[in-house]
Amino acid sequence: MTKVCAVIMAGGVGTRFWPRSRERSPKQLLEILGKGTMIQNTVKRLDKFIDPENVFIVTNKIQKGLVAKQLPNVREENIVVEPVGRNTAPCIGLAALHVLRIDPSAVMLVLPADHLIQDVVEFQRVIELAVEIAHGSGNLMTIGIHPTHPETGYGYIQMYNEDGKHNPYFSKGVYKVKTFAEKPNLQVAERFLASGDFLWNSGMFVWRADAILRSIKQCLPDLHSELMKIGTAIGTPQYQSTLEMVYGVIRGISVDYGVMEKSEDVFVIPGQFGWSDIGSWDEVYRIAGKDDRGNSINGRVIHRDTNNSFVYSENRVIATIGVSDLIIVDTGDALLVCKRGRSQDVKEISDYLKRKQMNEYL
Amino acid sequence: MTKVCAVIMAGGVGTRFWPRSRERSPKQLLEILGKGTMIQNTVKRLDKFIDPENVFIVTNKIQKGLVAKQLPNVREENIVVEPVGRNTAPCIGLAALHVLRIDPSAVMLVLPADHLIQDVVEFQRVIELAVEIAHGSGNLMTIGIHPTHPETGYGYIQMYNEDGKHNPYFSKGVYKVKTFAEKPNLQVAERFLASGDFLWNSGMFVWRADAILRSIKQCLPDLHSELMKIGTAIGTPQYQSTLEMVYGVIRGISVDYGVMEKSEDVFVIPGQFGWSDIGSWDEVYRIAGKDDRGNSINGRVIHRDTNNSFVYSENRVIATIGVSDLIIVDTGDALLVCKRGRSQDVKEISDYLKRKQMNEYL
Repeated sequence: MTKVCAVIMAGGVGTRFWPRSRERSPKQLLEILGKGTMIQNTVKRLDKFIDPENVFIVTNKIQKGLVAKQLPNVREENIVVEPVGRNTAPCIGLAALHVLRIDPSAVMLVLPADHLIQDVVEFQRVIELAVEIAHGSGNLMTIGIHPTHPETGYGYIQMYNEDGKHNPYFSKGVYKVKTFAEKPNLQVAERFLASGDFLWNSGMFVWRADAILRSIKQCLPDLHSELMKIGTAIGTPQYQSTLEMVYGVIRGISVDYGVMEKSEDVFVIPGQFGWSDIGSWDEVYRIAGKDDRGNSINGRVIHRDTNNSFVYSENRVIATIGVSDLIIVDTGDALLVCKRGRSQDVKEISDYLKRKQMNEYL
Repeated sequence: MTKVCAVIMAGGVGTRFWPRSRERSPKQLLEILGKGTMIQNTVKRLDKFIDPENVFIVTNKIQKGLVAKQLPNVREENIVVEPVGRNTAPCIGLAALHVLRIDPSAVMLVLPADHLIQDVVEFQRVIELAVEIAHGSGNLMTIGIHPTHPETGYGYIQMYNEDGKHNPYFSKGVYKVKTFAEKPNLQVAERFLASGDFLWNSGMFVWRADAILRSIKQCLPDLHSELMKIGTAIGTPQYQSTLEMVYGVIRGISVDYGVMEKSEDVFVIPGQFGWSDIGSWDEVYRIAGKDDRGNSINGRVIHRDTNNSFVYSENRVIATIGVSDLIIVDTGDALLVCKRGRSQDVKEISDYLKRKQMNEYL
C-alpha cells in the first residue's frame, strides 16, 4: 500500500492580517473563518485519508509551541522546526528527509497551512489521483486552480491544454505543465485568464519524497548536498547543530522556480474545490457570510445604518454608525480601520511598525 | 464690594460622547479638547475674577468623588450634591440657598461645566457687566450668543432689539428679553437666524441669589416652599434627609421655562467669546486643530491616505487606511466608528446599551 505523508508548511508571518496576525500568531494559527484555526482545518481535511501519525508540520521556533498546542494529534517529532525561513525549496527538502525515514517510497503531499478549501470530497479525489500518479511514475504533481478572475496576487501555471505532449494521464484530467509564471500585473493576468490554459498556482504539490530530492539534486545541487548533511544527522545528537549550520549557508529559493520550472515531467491537476488562499481581509469579507445589508459582523457589534462592511471584535463593544465599505478589526492592543479594497495596504502598517521597532505590535 | 459666587452645574451624563463619556466620567470630567477637563477649564476661566472659595459645584453622587479630585482648590463643602437630577430650576434654587449663607447680597454666576469659551477676556467683560447690573438692580441676567448658523441643538432667546422697552442698559449692549424658545426645527431655526433678534441660549445666568429665589417664589411657589425646607436644614444634621425628602417630591423643570419665561425684567447680554457647548463629536472635530489632510489625530495612530477624520486613541495603536470623513473613538472597552455628520446618533448607542442593560458600557 502507498504510504502518504502530509507536509504542512506553516512558517508564514501573515502580515496581511494585522492586527490579528502577529509573529507569534500568524494567519495559519488564527480562526479566520468559522470554527477552528486555519491549520487545524488543514489537518482536519486530511482525516479521511491520511493517518495522523503521517502528518508533518514545518514551522519555526516562535510558532512551534502554539502549533503543538493547536494540533494535539500530531506527533511531537513530526513538528519540524526550521532555524530560519529559506523559502519553500529548503523547507520541502528538509521535510522530504523526515518523510523518507518513515518509508523510502512514501508519497509527500505538500500543503500550505493557511488556505481555504470548501469542497473536501473533490479535494480528496484530486489528491488521491495525484498520489496514484506520483507513486507509480515518480513524476512531480502540482494542483492548479481554474482562475475565476484576473488575480494579481497569485502565481500561475501554464499547461499544455491538449494530449499531444507525452501525456498518458490526459484522459484523467491531468495536464503537463508548460511553465510557471510569477504574480502578473493586471494586464498580463487578464491575458492569462482569456487564454484558458493558465491555472492559479495553489502551492500544493504531490510527489514521492525520493523523487523531489532527486529533482533538487538535478536543479539545485548545492542545496541538495547541504540537505544530505542534515539527512545524515537526523536522529543523532548532531541534528540540531547541523540543521543550524546548513540553514546558515543555504540561500532561500522557492520550489516552483528552483525545481519545478526546470524539471521535465511535471503535471498539474486542475482542482475545483472552493479554494482560496484568503490573502487579505478583503478576501475574508468576500468569502464570509453576510447579513442583508452586506455586513459580516463578528463579535459584540452594535451597527446602525452600516453597509457592506466587515467588523471583527475580539472582546470590546464596537458601535458603527452610518458607515459603508469598511473593514474594522479590533484586537486587545490594536485596531485597524480600512476601506474595503485597500486591505493589501495592511502590509504597509506592519512594515511601518517594524521600521519604528514597535515590536510588541508585530 | 460685590461678592460674586460661581455656581457650576455639573450633573450631565453626556451620552453623546460615548464611548469616552460614561455615567462615572461624563463630558465635563473629560479632556475633550487640549489640556484640562471641561470642568477644570470652566473653573480656571474664573481665576482672574472669582475667589476660589466662592466657587460652588452642583453635581451628583456618582460624580462627586471625581469632581473633588479634579478640583482640589474648590472647598469640599462647596460641592453640592443633588440626590437626583430635577433639571435646572431646583438645582439653581438649591445652589442659591448655599450662596446666601456666604453673603445675603451675593451675586450668583451660573455656568454649565462643559462649555468651551475661547476668548476669556471678552467672557470676563460680559460677566462683569452682568454682575454690575444684577447686583444693582436685582434683575435676572442671561448671556446669549450671536448665532452663526441655524443650529437645531440649542434653545434660543428672542430680544427686544431696540431701546424703547424700558431698557436703561441699552447703551451698554444689554437687551431686554422678549421670550425663550425651545430647540427649533431647521425651518424655524433659519427664520430665527434671519430675523436678527434671536440669540443662542448659552445656559449662563447672572443674578443675586435672593433675586432668583424671589422669582422662583413667584413663578414656582411649590418648588420655593420645598426649597425653604432645605434652607432651614442647611448646616444641621437634618440637611441630608431633608434634601432627599424634598428631591423625592419636587418635579423637574428648567429655570428657562419655569422662571425666566414668566419673569419681568429679564435681560440678555450677547457675548462673542468663541463659545460652543461642544455637543457632539462632530463639533469636537470642527473645533479641533487639523493637519493638512483635515485630520484631527489624537494618540498613537498610523494613518495612510486618511482624510477629514477625527481619530482618538486612549491607549492602543490604531491604523487607518484609505478612509475619509470618519470619527473613530477608541477607549479601553469600547470603540466608536461613525460617519462625520452622524454623531448625534451616538445617543442611540447609549440608549441601546441601556435597553440591553449593558451597564458596564454606560
